Amino acid sequence: MEKNIIRDRGAVYCNEGAWDALQEIISEIKPTKVFVLTDEHTQVDCLPYFLEHFHTAHIPIQLTIPAGEIYKTIATCLELWKQLSENGADRKSLLINLGGGVVTDLGGFVACTYQRGIDFINVPTSLLAMVDASVGGKNGVDLGALKNQIGIIHNPRAVIVDTQFLETLPPEQFKSGMSEMIKHGFIHSETYLQQAMAMSQSHTDETSQLIWDSILIKNSIITEDPLEQGLRKTLNYGHTLGHAIESYCLETPSKDSLLHGEAIAIGMILATYISHEQFSFPKEKLEETSAFLLKTFRKVDFSKPEIDEIIKLLIFDKKNTSGKIQFVLLENIGIHRLNCIVPNELIYDAFNFYGKLDKEA
Amino acid sequence: MEKNIIRDRGAVYCNEGAWDALQEIISEIKPTKVFVLTDEHTQVDCLPYFLEHFHTAHIPIQLTIPAGEIYKTIATCLELWKQLSENGADRKSLLINLGGGVVTDLGGFVACTYQRGIDFINVPTSLLAMVDASVGGKNGVDLGALKNQIGIIHNPRAVIVDTQFLETLPPEQFKSGMSEMIKHGFIHSETYLQQAMAMSQSHTDETSQLIWDSILIKNSIITEDPLEQGLRKTLNYGHTLGHAIESYCLETPSKDSLLHGEAIAIGMILATYISHEQFSFPKEKLEETSAFLLKTFRKVDFSKPEIDEIIKLLIFDKKNTSGKIQFVLLENIGIHRLNCIVPNELIYDAFNFYGKLDKEA
Repeated sequence: MEKNIIRDRGAVYCNEGAWDALQEIISEIKPTKVFVLTDEHTQVDCLPYFLEHFHTAHIPIQLTIPAGEIYKTIATCLELWKQLSENGADRKSLLINLGGGVVTDLGGFVACTYQRGIDFINVPTSLLAMVDASVGGKNGVDLGALKNQIGIIHNPRAVIVDTQFLETLPPEQFKSGMSEMIKHGFIHSETYLQQAMAMSQSHTDETSQLIWDSILIKNSIITEDPLEQGLRKTLNYGHTLGHAIESYCLETPSKDSLLHGEAIAIGMILATYISHEQFSFPKEKLEETSAFLLKTFRKVDFSKPEIDEIIKLLIFDKKNTSGKIQFVLLENIGIHRLNCIVPNELIYDAFNFYGKLDKEA
Repeated sequence: MEKNIIRDRGAVYCNEGAWDALQEIISEIKPTKVFVLTDEHTQVDCLPYFLEHFHTAHIPIQLTIPAGEIYKTIATCLELWKQLSENGADRKSLLINLGGGVVTDLGGFVACTYQRGIDFINVPTSLLAMVDASVGGKNGVDLGALKNQIGIIHNPRAVIVDTQFLETLPPEQFKSGMSEMIKHGFIHSETYLQQAMAMSQSHTDETSQLIWDSILIKNSIITEDPLEQGLRKTLNYGHTLGHAIESYCLETPSKDSLLHGEAIAIGMILATYISHEQFSFPKEKLEETSAFLLKTFRKVDFSKPEIDEIIKLLIFDKKNTSGKIQFVLLENIGIHRLNCIVPNELIYDAFNFYGKLDKEA
């Protein structure tokens, strides 16, 4: 089966035929120069495979950034803008971002703003980047501990998904991506939720199909509501508290940093608990999903003062206006409620519920 | 006469009724918070007048940057993003940029990229910002000596032009703006060119009308060719060498920095000389305009090695691709030729012509 979403900007090609599509797009763009951006990991693990499959007359100029969310900053962008400039990049140059979400988010932002915008193509190499960052056109960088505070929305020219890259992915990174697929299950359907929870890292047709389904779920939501006025907000499920937890752990030296998916997994347990309390989300599904998420992802202890700090961070969430914290909640799997105001006490209760869950159960 | 260009984004209101229009737009946007950005000069010279005319329920939060092109950098943006964040700016906040081109260009970029884009309104206070930066949606910052290397194209929600601000403008800043109006004359018509050259800084209806005509000339060009595929390139007249001269003087400690209009004035003399040599632009008009520009703007001496350096800088001009330097030239006033390749020898000849012009003549 062909796995393509075709459109002017932001076309997605997956596996069979994807590299041929890349070649065709580049013949169409006729770039003056091609740059390929990696981080220190994907330079080693993914660039050789990429170059093997990159059959055009261009010899890409390589740009590399240090690996990790802490480098998703304006300082890193500044370094890349300078390198593009020094290497003679002009308005008709092309940037290919080869890596996980940090590389595609940051590289996309650098491309959109270099000489007021050059073409870029994303080649996501992590599961998270494949199922989350590959569609939607969001790109940008963090501002201190605040995630994606600086950025713009602009689609890449195309996205090339090759699930072969997942073979080199560390298991915890694979799980981080699974977390977003599980989120797609929560907001879409019981069937997909069960499939995502049962997924394995082995590179099988079944895994590829589940990844493609996740891309299609996200794509259909974004196509229906590109400006995030309603439905698209559902993609924020588990992210309101998840982002705040991720930011808090990132900026607190005594806390281990969490991968995005790890933080979102905690955020989903909390949001599902709140959904149960506010909208009678079924108890047995709360228990089943919480047990699965707890078993699959790291458990983090939060003290009362830490929870206070996390709640303070919520007001910096881009989704919130006028200081009101707005949650996406669920009445049931696939049935959402937008713009829910949640009292702080209920947030404390949710942390209490999470804290009491038994990892060994 | 009403002076308005109405459209969804980037509407321009000039003088009578402009402040009422601002009030209406703000009632429409219903921002959660209003920020007003100035530099250290406009904070003193323009902010009190602005606040007198700002009749809404909002009390604007003031942000100030140091004055001058050398602060048109990503470092200044980073400072502003932090201040917006610390002051609780959210996606529905509004940024009003009150100042010259540096403030409107940089403030626009900060707004477009804060939380993936918030609304902004430009209130240009310099003549240059009124006639040049007010339409076209270009915004951004410099990268080292390279002008506007980082940025995006995005229209402000509206532009409020009040020519009263020109009363506080130092004469050399006024002349810097005149330079762009003269450029509009070169590419548009003999009539407007003569009017622009005869203009005075006195705040008269005639001056206001000439400013509005300049805005209309630029607007009609941009409306016809928003993507800069043809006609819009004419706005680059005098800018190819002008930008390179401006950059060179900015980064060379032994050279005095030039105002944008001063550099463009030199660029126009050079481009008009090249136009005469390549396309028989009339000699008497070359002499008349060169004499006027020389008399009105600073004359700068360039040595041979300096001209070499300036030519090197041309390849970083955003308008150039594949290392080819492309000029806009003129067959006559208002009759343009795009994408002209000019041999380096002719550029040296043009500098030679400029060098021999007698300031006292």
